Amino acid sequence: MPLTLYELWGATDKRFSPFCWRTRMALAHKGLEPDEIIPVGFTEKEKIAFSGQDRVPVIVDNGKTVFDSWSIACYLEDTYPTHPALFGSATARGEALFINSWADRVFMVELFPMVVKDVFDHVREEDREHFRETREKWMKGQLEEVQAKRDERIESFRKRLDVLRHTLGKEPFLCGETPAYGDYIVFGVFQWARCVSPFILLAEDDPIRQWRERMLDLFDGYARNFDGYPC
Amino acid sequence: MPLTLYELWGATDKRFSPFCWRTRMALAHKGLEPDEIIPVGFTEKEKIAFSGQDRVPVIVDNGKTVFDSWSIACYLEDTYPTHPALFGSATARGEALFINSWADRVFMVELFPMVVKDVFDHVREEDREHFRETREKWMKGQLEEVQAKRDERIESFRKRLDVLRHTLGKEPFLCGETPAYGDYIVFGVFQWARCVSPFILLAEDDPIRQWRERMLDLFDGYARNFDGYPC
Repeated sequence: MPLTLYELWGATDKRFSPFCWRTRMALAHKGLEPDEIIPVGFTEKEKIAFSGQDRVPVIVDNGKTVFDSWSIACYLEDTYPTHPALFGSATARGEALFINSWADRVFMVELFPMVVKDVFDHVREEDREHFRETREKWMKGQLEEVQAKRDERIESFRKRLDVLRHTLGKEPFLCGETPAYGDYIVFGVFQWARCVSPFILLAEDDPIRQWRERMLDLFDGYARNFDGYPC
Repeated sequence: MPLTLYELWGATDKRFSPFCWRTRMALAHKGLEPDEIIPVGFTEKEKIAFSGQDRVPVIVDNGKTVFDSWSIACYLEDTYPTHPALFGSATARGEALFINSWADRVFMVELFPMVVKDVFDHVREEDREHFRETREKWMKGQLEEVQAKRDERIESFRKRLDVLRHTLGKEPFLCGETPAYGDYIVFGVFQWARCVSPFILLAEDDPIRQWRERMLDLFDGYARNFDGYPC
């Protein structure tokens, strides 16, 4: 039975969703290759209406529909226990949920205003009005104006990543000696920025940058091989 | 061979160090009871000079000296692998280090100014001058004045715990269905506050509060049985 992934796409077929990247990396880690990848634009919700909700990623695996990147990771781990482990234990799964919360509620929240216009520029023409309207409401400001402040924001952004930096100064991956889902959670957010923005987020000597390079190298340069900016 | 724990003490024999509480909970989890617990005041560094550094906790286990709460947890896990697991896997250990960084670099940093005068009040008379001098330098202000602003700070403090709250809204412990070292890392900080401060940190209906209650219940109410404030 086939495995199908529904993921966000943008202009020039760019695949930039941080959540979809978590799922892409999780699938690669498990050695599972989707038989089909169906792109979904911001205003193409009808393509995933069958899932009973309106956000990507969605997978359909052997007829089973699963949505939400966290739920997909748990599903893959439970359904393919003999493939390389995304968590490997209930404790690691529990802790990864904390990393997931941090990535969504701290890291993404800090990062989004700094790349929001760059994201916009990679959104499909037909999705731009929708994107601008919804994101300007979230951001409480015009995309261009919000992003223009990134030079002022970068220092506090980097400081907010201190938790990540300190951890990665002590171990090569967030999951220890080898990468696992906790790494993919955070990496997905970096890959999102890399796909759309030329803005340099990390200083040259930042241990996070070295970790990001290691992540880009995984699975024969899987994430690096996607069109992106030097970052 | 005996197991000895060196930990911080305060006035009226109060044991309130967040780092020592991590070690206490780790020992309890492993089912290891120290044969001797040696209290160390802020100005009694000579008691632990043998460890080659000046901070508690320190353990001496079968003649082996280990210091730093994280290193102690790793030592206990590696030395007592058949006892209940603090991590249970390299992945979980890796992820717990992220939780440790967050607890030290976000949670404690936010919490300390709100209870610093309460901590001072529980410091031994002979340690107070040292405590005031060093902490007022860190805080860049008089202890009384710093703490007096806690009513203004509490809202942003609670907001900063959103990562923790969101996680604990989805699972009973940070380590999933059952507690492990990731939980003790964060709990140690709460227990520190509980030991010294009557200030209410969490709203009644906060999921973090319910988790804290579960933590206080562990090991027959081990942490709850220590003298503390309703919190």
